[in-house]
Amino acid sequence: MCEANAYMVKDGKEELLMEAVDLIEPEDNNSGYRIMSIFGEQKIIKGRIKSMNLVSHKILFEKTV
Amino acid sequence: MCEANAYMVKDGKEELLMEAVDLIEPEDNNSGYRIMSIFGEQKIIKGRIKSMNLVSHKILFEKTV
Repeated sequence: MCEANAYMVKDGKEELLMEAVDLIEPEDNNSGYRIMSIFGEQKIIKGRIKSMNLVSHKILFEKTV
Repeated sequence: MCEANAYMVKDGKEELLMEAVDLIEPEDNNSGYRIMSIFGEQKIIKGRIKSMNLVSHKILFEKTV
């Protein structure tokens, strides 16, 4: 399976937000993203995408300044 | 491998931007994203992420209004 783990980068550290993320969609007001795992878990992430590395299964978010 | 195909959604149609995308990073000025394939091909995509579905290997971009 090709889901990825999502992290919030804070002070240079990666805090796990959710494992096995399948879906990522921007929120309507552009304040962040809705992410959903293959298990159906959902979270709203306030911030922006910092980087995604699909082969490494890694999605990094960061707070918007 | 878990790379995905990137598409631009225009008038409801999906136009292929790049196959086998591995890396996605926002441009410094937030005008869009830099995407890179596992083959090292790079493109700058003007627009925003519309949705990503990792299990389906699909990244959709759309022009910002």
